[in-house]
Amino acid sequence: MSAEVICVGTELLLGDILNSNVQFLAKELASLGIPHYYQTVVGDNPTRLKEVIEIASKRASILIFTGGLGPTPDDLTTETIANLFDTPLIERYEIIEDISQKFAARGRIMTENNRKQALLPQGADILPNPSGTAPGLLWQPRPNLTLMTFPGVPSEMKLMWRETAVPYLKSQGWGKEVIYSRMLRFRGIGESALATKVVKFFELTNPTVAPYASLGEVRLRISAKTASEEEAIALIEPVAQEIQKIAGLDYYGSDDANLATVVADLLKQAAETVSVAESCTGGGLGSILTSIAGSSDYFRGGIIAYENRVKIDLLGVKTQNLEEDGAVSAIVAQQMALGVQQRLGTDWGISITGIAGPGGGTITKPVGLVYIGLADSQGKVDSFECRFGNRDRDIIRSLSSYTALDKLRRKLLAKKLGM
Amino acid sequence: MSAEVICVGTELLLGDILNSNVQFLAKELASLGIPHYYQTVVGDNPTRLKEVIEIASKRASILIFTGGLGPTPDDLTTETIANLFDTPLIERYEIIEDISQKFAARGRIMTENNRKQALLPQGADILPNPSGTAPGLLWQPRPNLTLMTFPGVPSEMKLMWRETAVPYLKSQGWGKEVIYSRMLRFRGIGESALATKVVKFFELTNPTVAPYASLGEVRLRISAKTASEEEAIALIEPVAQEIQKIAGLDYYGSDDANLATVVADLLKQAAETVSVAESCTGGGLGSILTSIAGSSDYFRGGIIAYENRVKIDLLGVKTQNLEEDGAVSAIVAQQMALGVQQRLGTDWGISITGIAGPGGGTITKPVGLVYIGLADSQGKVDSFECRFGNRDRDIIRSLSSYTALDKLRRKLLAKKLGM
Repeated sequence: MSAEVICVGTELLLGDILNSNVQFLAKELASLGIPHYYQTVVGDNPTRLKEVIEIASKRASILIFTGGLGPTPDDLTTETIANLFDTPLIERYEIIEDISQKFAARGRIMTENNRKQALLPQGADILPNPSGTAPGLLWQPRPNLTLMTFPGVPSEMKLMWRETAVPYLKSQGWGKEVIYSRMLRFRGIGESALATKVVKFFELTNPTVAPYASLGEVRLRISAKTASEEEAIALIEPVAQEIQKIAGLDYYGSDDANLATVVADLLKQAAETVSVAESCTGGGLGSILTSIAGSSDYFRGGIIAYENRVKIDLLGVKTQNLEEDGAVSAIVAQQMALGVQQRLGTDWGISITGIAGPGGGTITKPVGLVYIGLADSQGKVDSFECRFGNRDRDIIRSLSSYTALDKLRRKLLAKKLGM
Repeated sequence: MSAEVICVGTELLLGDILNSNVQFLAKELASLGIPHYYQTVVGDNPTRLKEVIEIASKRASILIFTGGLGPTPDDLTTETIANLFDTPLIERYEIIEDISQKFAARGRIMTENNRKQALLPQGADILPNPSGTAPGLLWQPRPNLTLMTFPGVPSEMKLMWRETAVPYLKSQGWGKEVIYSRMLRFRGIGESALATKVVKFFELTNPTVAPYASLGEVRLRISAKTASEEEAIALIEPVAQEIQKIAGLDYYGSDDANLATVVADLLKQAAETVSVAESCTGGGLGSILTSIAGSSDYFRGGIIAYENRVKIDLLGVKTQNLEEDGAVSAIVAQQMALGVQQRLGTDWGISITGIAGPGGGTITKPVGLVYIGLADSQGKVDSFECRFGNRDRDIIRSLSSYTALDKLRRKLLAKKLGM
């Protein structure tokens, strides 16, 4: 018993719209514990749609359609379904009534082409649409095959799913098993390096553990399938604990946590404040820190020192070091961090200076070379050299800001844990 | 001859991620004139993936895969393809070389599991991946069937598509009838207001004109379908000219132009410099200004004055005004703009102070109230009151930064045109 999603619409094949419906349905099916192995998109073409339904109905027992229920001639989902299962379309009086009333409520008259939306295959049930004009169908054209159709407009589809499809699916016994997941998040370690450390968990079957990677971050998803959320958590928790222990400081948070929220929590717990001195990121780190509501509790401000003159005048960077070591150097990063920490009177000062490219690189200082400085209120200052490689300017700048944030996180966490 | 897109990844079936890759590919295929009738999503399961490839290879002559090229055991696309076409996988020395070099450039060592990414079916060509570690394959396992694989990470996939797949497809004769478009971009006017002004163009058939709206911006897409780019431009140009004339200062640029590039060009033409003083945006405006390579020509830096103390100490904002008018007021925005313009010695100073929410709003100063200050080197300073409404913090901050940039753009443009 599994479900399959079929999205109908030439606009999806042209790339005019992003298919957010299928992501919504995928999440919903997972939360109801309904297995779902394929998603298909097909245009407003009855021959191809028919072929897609034939293939899907051999693989799955519940077919969920979105799109093609409108009043115009290119809306073909219902008639293609009826045609495939050799069943006549019948005009439903109650749908005509309902559509007329909805039009009347909006002060409009139902047009002739809306009558098309009242046609359903003989024997099919109406799947009510609480917000839009057209209902869907709920139909078993043969044993062990249930079809459900939804409009393509996301707001209508979602409301209809929640109000009419979910109650039906639950009445059929679904939703008794839940799939519950936790996403663990890591920084400062590559996907393959982390995978090597935790490889044994990939063999597990319940919960399962799977790795994902995105820019500068690796994630492990732990998923359990059980009768209740409590049981799922009981399965997930020990695995999560063990992985977190293995990963040490590289693990930074789970689920909706991000580096900014994690650093915010650590700073609030320590009742400490931070300020930033930014060169190549131009304010990006400050922007990330202030993306969190309530960031005024721990963020005071910063200096965007893009030009050397600003580094000298507002941060106290030494002209000699700018000349001898260059603006992109460990010593300048240290002076920037210390300068902003002192001038703004914060517990921490973080600085970033680097070559974001595409120009400005040399053999000894290539594009992607970035120094991060981290100063504390005792005047102690560290610096970190990062080599992000000759990548896009945006990527280098983003990696610079998040790496700087991660350096502060590690420092705060190590201090908290007494390491 | 048609193409088909197959996206591989259990995370898509679980609804963890929105499938933006398929929308990108759909648009690209349309612009190359390659017909494309089906999109399929399947999980990291070799049996099901094999079945999907078998079905697709009967319907289409170009199969485009995304996902499943990573180094971990659940990345199965390449081996499933090889297996289906009964072809052994061969380790490619040049891929090992390339991956090792990429790891080295980032100061990391290639791990053993990355070797998996160097395996390609015998006879397949390498489809180079300019940014990520794993390349794809380009392979004709039998006449009239071409397979192309891409990683699932959107930034990698897109770069790889543009740099390696498009040249290949063009060499195969695709893209001869071109759909050529120009996107005109507008700020400071709503979609319906702009549509009303240019409604007559919506009737055109070649080129066509269609409106799009996104946060704070309206776009008009002018598309022509012709045999050559020159012919298309000849159709598009007069329409674009006429629309730009109607829109006046609300039109700011076309195609890849964005507010930052437009302001950059205007500042460079005028040989003028700018600095920023940011409160609620926390560095977001500086970050946008420095997103452009070469921004050191006109951007000197700024002060992130999140806390009032920083506004007083580093920008010279008057304590009296902070107390009487509040930090979110026209007068404080003016003092901030003037303060940063003077302290950094730039031609222009822009400031932003506002209530980004979700907390901090009052009846007289609700969430979404933002003041923008704009000072010039003659000591003249303007301020602008914006009411962005009780929306998401991120949205209010983004609208604030872009509106500030747009105020500078209008000022620079008016000056340039002698208005």
